[in-house]
Amino acid sequence: MTPKETLNAYKERLEAYLDALPLSGAPDQLKEAMRYSLLGGGKRLRGCLLLMACEMAGGTVSEALPFAAALEMIHAYSLIHDDLPAMDNDTLRRGKPTNHVVFGEAMAILAGDGLLTHAFEIMAASDHPRAFRALGEIARAAGVGGMLGGQVLDVTNEGAAPEKALVEAIQRGKTAALLTAPVTAGLILGGADEKQIEAGRAYGYHLGMAFQIVDDILDVEGDPALMGKTLGKDEAEGKLTWPACVGLSQAKRDAAAHIDAAVKALDVFGGAADGLKALAYSSLHRVQ
Amino acid sequence: MTPKETLNAYKERLEAYLDALPLSGAPDQLKEAMRYSLLGGGKRLRGCLLLMACEMAGGTVSEALPFAAALEMIHAYSLIHDDLPAMDNDTLRRGKPTNHVVFGEAMAILAGDGLLTHAFEIMAASDHPRAFRALGEIARAAGVGGMLGGQVLDVTNEGAAPEKALVEAIQRGKTAALLTAPVTAGLILGGADEKQIEAGRAYGYHLGMAFQIVDDILDVEGDPALMGKTLGKDEAEGKLTWPACVGLSQAKRDAAAHIDAAVKALDVFGGAADGLKALAYSSLHRVQ
Repeated sequence: MTPKETLNAYKERLEAYLDALPLSGAPDQLKEAMRYSLLGGGKRLRGCLLLMACEMAGGTVSEALPFAAALEMIHAYSLIHDDLPAMDNDTLRRGKPTNHVVFGEAMAILAGDGLLTHAFEIMAASDHPRAFRALGEIARAAGVGGMLGGQVLDVTNEGAAPEKALVEAIQRGKTAALLTAPVTAGLILGGADEKQIEAGRAYGYHLGMAFQIVDDILDVEGDPALMGKTLGKDEAEGKLTWPACVGLSQAKRDAAAHIDAAVKALDVFGGAADGLKALAYSSLHRVQ
Repeated sequence: MTPKETLNAYKERLEAYLDALPLSGAPDQLKEAMRYSLLGGGKRLRGCLLLMACEMAGGTVSEALPFAAALEMIHAYSLIHDDLPAMDNDTLRRGKPTNHVVFGEAMAILAGDGLLTHAFEIMAASDHPRAFRALGEIARAAGVGGMLGGQVLDVTNEGAAPEKALVEAIQRGKTAALLTAPVTAGLILGGADEKQIEAGRAYGYHLGMAFQIVDDILDVEGDPALMGKTLGKDEAEGKLTWPACVGLSQAKRDAAAHIDAAVKALDVFGGAADGLKALAYSSLHRVQ
């Protein structure tokens, strides 16, 4: 199978699992608003990373699915809240109207809260012997020292002078944290040892940094029709990005270096890491 | 000690613990906004219930503190998001400007998200052998079949005809869920058996129902100066309340009956339940 076919096989399992989630006890309107964003497409990169990492460590997709679903819920909640009028005020996401445009602001706030809370509920319902530790990895990654902290730095530093250390902190939190946690949590569930978990952490960090740099490069020179969203917003809003710090050419070289570092970190897994390595390389292709 | 003195002793421990929380990794502005609402006063009823339930089952306050703090974080997040312009649009809470009035809407949304996520992060950092089960109780109570579901029913049914079953469902979710989880989680942490945990669940449910009914009675006939908030809002907004269903006199009788049922449920604990029983009785005094 090509890397893309491999990824699609994981993605299909995850999509089916997400679609079948009962969201038990949720009032109909809340369920509808949550499902709109949770099932609204997307690459499922975070969930698939978790499934692949778990398998790489000797675990099964089945035992990892609730955690992969939790990551997708956390990702979906963060997008709903980011798109709110008081935040980025985006009306389009993946070519569809954003949650608050369809359901109103109040329900969008509640749908985001619901997805975040349900992520923990679904993980807490797992009977996996290492579920608690995996949940902790994901909670920290989503939290004030992870994704959320990165978003706050991003929002509060709009218009500031581009400075490498600050941009690195923003990217580490906003993007890399929630690409690292699936890998470490997946490895924990799959039974990896501590050295392997730290290797996965390095992979996730570098993948995340590369991913955000590539995203920011595409915001400058991508094709709006292919991207399904408004481009050029970063510069218009004075967002701190890596290309703004070092220029487009150097940013491309840095992204490539991050991918090399990500791939190298996985050498400890031997051939079992081929899937995750190919996934890392493929994330560069968008700008090469 | 009087019930009030007992409660205050727990409250002081919890306040000191909350104030000392590092909120590790949070950017300064986020930390400030989170602390503004987390340390903004309040009765600490949820946290204290958890500490008392844990002790009643033979556990210690120390081992229960992270979970009590988590409940107060979840409560604080729900108030921040409830007060937002798109939701209840409240500008005053406990006599102080609400979070979004002080920090702006974007930061208020993020501070709420941060408190919710940090609640799980702090519980996940516990090394208590029954931490995972306690976390699950709290996640379910905060979730789409609990507090959040109740809030959605509350918001989406404004102006509907008062109907007992619907009001019961709203109160069960919006209020009782997050008063029940501290009791069951505290009992789990303290080492209670299944029968005791179910007794605690009954106590929490009836306490929660009484608590909401009393709140709604006070919204009709309370003293604004004593309450520190705008009264009469329920009727103005067409909120579904128990007094609106059955009248004020019957609502008072029903609240008293819930308290009796709550107290009776704790008989299984003998004299160890005196504190929680007194707390239940004291919640009625506000309207008698």
